[in-house]
Amino acid sequence: MREAEFIARYAALVEEGRIRELREQLSPLHPADIAEIIEELTPEQGAMLFRMLPKDEAAEVMSALDPPQQQQLVEVFADKELVDLIANMFVDDAVDLVEELPSNAVRRILQLSSPEKRATLNRFMQYPEHSAGSIMTEEFIRLREFTLVGQAIAAIRADRRRRVSLHTAYITTADNRLTGVVSISELLVSPDDVAVGTLGLKDVISVTTDTDQEEVVAMIRHYGFLAMPVVDSDGRLVGVVTVDDALYIAEEEATEDFELMAATTPAEDTYLNTSVLSHAKNRLPWLLILMISGLLNGLILGSFEHAFIAVPLLVTFIPMLTDTGGNTGSQSSTLVIRGLALGEIQIADALRVLRKELGIALLVGSVLGLVGFGRVMLFGDGDVNIALTVGLALIAVVMLAKLIGGLLPIVARRIGLDPALMAAPMITTIVDAIGLVIFFSLAKLLLPI
Amino acid sequence: MREAEFIARYAALVEEGRIRELREQLSPLHPADIAEIIEELTPEQGAMLFRMLPKDEAAEVMSALDPPQQQQLVEVFADKELVDLIANMFVDDAVDLVEELPSNAVRRILQLSSPEKRATLNRFMQYPEHSAGSIMTEEFIRLREFTLVGQAIAAIRADRRRRVSLHTAYITTADNRLTGVVSISELLVSPDDVAVGTLGLKDVISVTTDTDQEEVVAMIRHYGFLAMPVVDSDGRLVGVVTVDDALYIAEEEATEDFELMAATTPAEDTYLNTSVLSHAKNRLPWLLILMISGLLNGLILGSFEHAFIAVPLLVTFIPMLTDTGGNTGSQSSTLVIRGLALGEIQIADALRVLRKELGIALLVGSVLGLVGFGRVMLFGDGDVNIALTVGLALIAVVMLAKLIGGLLPIVARRIGLDPALMAAPMITTIVDAIGLVIFFSLAKLLLPI
Repeated sequence: MREAEFIARYAALVEEGRIRELREQLSPLHPADIAEIIEELTPEQGAMLFRMLPKDEAAEVMSALDPPQQQQLVEVFADKELVDLIANMFVDDAVDLVEELPSNAVRRILQLSSPEKRATLNRFMQYPEHSAGSIMTEEFIRLREFTLVGQAIAAIRADRRRRVSLHTAYITTADNRLTGVVSISELLVSPDDVAVGTLGLKDVISVTTDTDQEEVVAMIRHYGFLAMPVVDSDGRLVGVVTVDDALYIAEEEATEDFELMAATTPAEDTYLNTSVLSHAKNRLPWLLILMISGLLNGLILGSFEHAFIAVPLLVTFIPMLTDTGGNTGSQSSTLVIRGLALGEIQIADALRVLRKELGIALLVGSVLGLVGFGRVMLFGDGDVNIALTVGLALIAVVMLAKLIGGLLPIVARRIGLDPALMAAPMITTIVDAIGLVIFFSLAKLLLPI
Repeated sequence: MREAEFIARYAALVEEGRIRELREQLSPLHPADIAEIIEELTPEQGAMLFRMLPKDEAAEVMSALDPPQQQQLVEVFADKELVDLIANMFVDDAVDLVEELPSNAVRRILQLSSPEKRATLNRFMQYPEHSAGSIMTEEFIRLREFTLVGQAIAAIRADRRRRVSLHTAYITTADNRLTGVVSISELLVSPDDVAVGTLGLKDVISVTTDTDQEEVVAMIRHYGFLAMPVVDSDGRLVGVVTVDDALYIAEEEATEDFELMAATTPAEDTYLNTSVLSHAKNRLPWLLILMISGLLNGLILGSFEHAFIAVPLLVTFIPMLTDTGGNTGSQSSTLVIRGLALGEIQIADALRVLRKELGIALLVGSVLGLVGFGRVMLFGDGDVNIALTVGLALIAVVMLAKLIGGLLPIVARRIGLDPALMAAPMITTIVDAIGLVIFFSLAKLLLPI
């Protein structure tokens, strides 16, 4: 976010060892900006700068770093330093950090941690990746239903622990079952002698620890929540997912979809922080797979060699036909993939999608087919049969592309694959092959080949 | 978010006119879920259901509706009803609603509104679309710097106005200049007799009313804020953008990018709620433009007719070559477009992107070129010169595609176009044309044509 010069100014202070100046200039900075500076330094320089920070701030800076930078920094740290750091981090951030460590380091850290921290870390690390349990935090306000408002406010004021979400208090029974939710603003404006259980909402919307993070984000957006309560399989309140984490996850999930849809393995880091080698590794396998499928298209074309030797003009329509098929198919698949990601389209909507794409394909296909026909008549050699071949092939390819593009992402979701895999590259490959067969079959039917 | 059956159950109650049952069953529902039910009803039915809601809740339901549904509902309403509704909505939601109304309706609404509401609406409507001013809200906590903590808490408790963000209080001078920010949790745990100006952070990170919403979202994500303060050109605090709105905008911006990148005009509504005709209208213009560019590729192929008549095998490599070019180029452009959208890549990084893509292209291009060469030698007719033509053309196309794909989005941003326009369809079209020229030029050089 900060400009390169801003970061370079601090990096220069570190390199020149101007410690006092650095300490003074760092103190007003936001932890997220300090994290950005550290990302530009060597791990040793970063650790030096890191050790100058107050404990609380160090924990926040560590949370703000991207995982690869966290790892580099952690490798320079002594175990004891790391344990102190983790003790000061919010539990969700601490778990994220610990999960990326090598297993023997994790063992050492857990041994050195306090028994409570160890228990919490162990419990959180058991939740599956991308589940609500793995992204929730424990730092929220919990009130028993019979507590009075005055007592509750006094208790909140007396409790000096840091909280990620102070906007909402969750009301539970004595055995921790979630029974209600009340905003702190409602609490503050209520009379002191009322039981908190009588305030706020009763039918609390919550997720369970194994709800997928994408669904949690969709629900937080849908309801405009600042935090979503998470309950275990017995209905006991175990954590909350906050909206700022939801924003981070939403952007991360969207980025992952963008990457998958462009036939790239998602990177762990930002574009500029990813090495050329890693970029190449993320991109090459998909290109090779898609190139092999290009082999199939080559074979199809080869089998129609006699056709385009007889009418060479046919070859000149191939790019228009395959491009149009790819573009029109990827329009459909992209919209459906995004709808699935946002929870706006469900698997059960397959038939509605099919009907919609069929209607769109008829409209779009007719227009493109007519334009294709007209193009050959006006600018081609004016042969009606060639024009018919091109026009009809266009209509068929558009119909096919829209149906495949619309349905394949839903099929992928149904069989447990990521719908984002069914984007432009995959659709283009499939549609190209079928489109070529249709085109040349029509040509053989309509032309003297 | 809710399942179709859930919504259908309520819709049935409305259609059968079972008002009492409906009233009972609606009351525990979240406004966002009531909005989902209304979207399935006719405007008249929706208005009927809407009028059964308490005022506050009606305002929240209206805010939760998508703009097209809001419009349908509003058309059924009397002016007076609408004015009451707007009086109960948060100012940012009210502005969103009013801005979509026809101008004579806006005039009537403003005339009937209270003078304060009218002044606020007028002021907010002047901010440019997609600016921080247009998405901020006025419902936040403002404290003067010399107010004591005890007074501040008492004042907050006494003030019964609804607030969107109660997490943070903003500290200002008497003339409203933003000087500090303090979390309510810090306020609550501080002694009563301390001035609020001595608490919290001093160097407040803020945006101005004309900061672009995408940048606001990126900053909220970067700093993990629950709300971002917005100041006017004189540094006076005029509003805040909340993180739940940021989440909504982030998803909306990502969706818009997905749509543009798939050569589709962004829709106002969800996939399923958009009509077949609107879908076709959003998709057709782009397909026509791209089809015309396919004409260019046809002309290029036509000019090399003698080449592929002499060596028909060449035609069979065209799909592999153009597909690979398109795929590899769209990998680069997608990553750069996303990096630009998230603020991770700036225009000033053009050279770094160029260097990175060059390195990646050398690695990826060599491998794909080798594979292409090997493929012709092993499965083609084994002619070394044809294999060389294919291999070298692949390397050239990959280099070209990665450089164009990496730079074009940055160029677009530089000249004020949306980088998302420079995605797969555009890149494919450009790269195809140049790729074909390279391929056949190499063929003419290396083969007896």
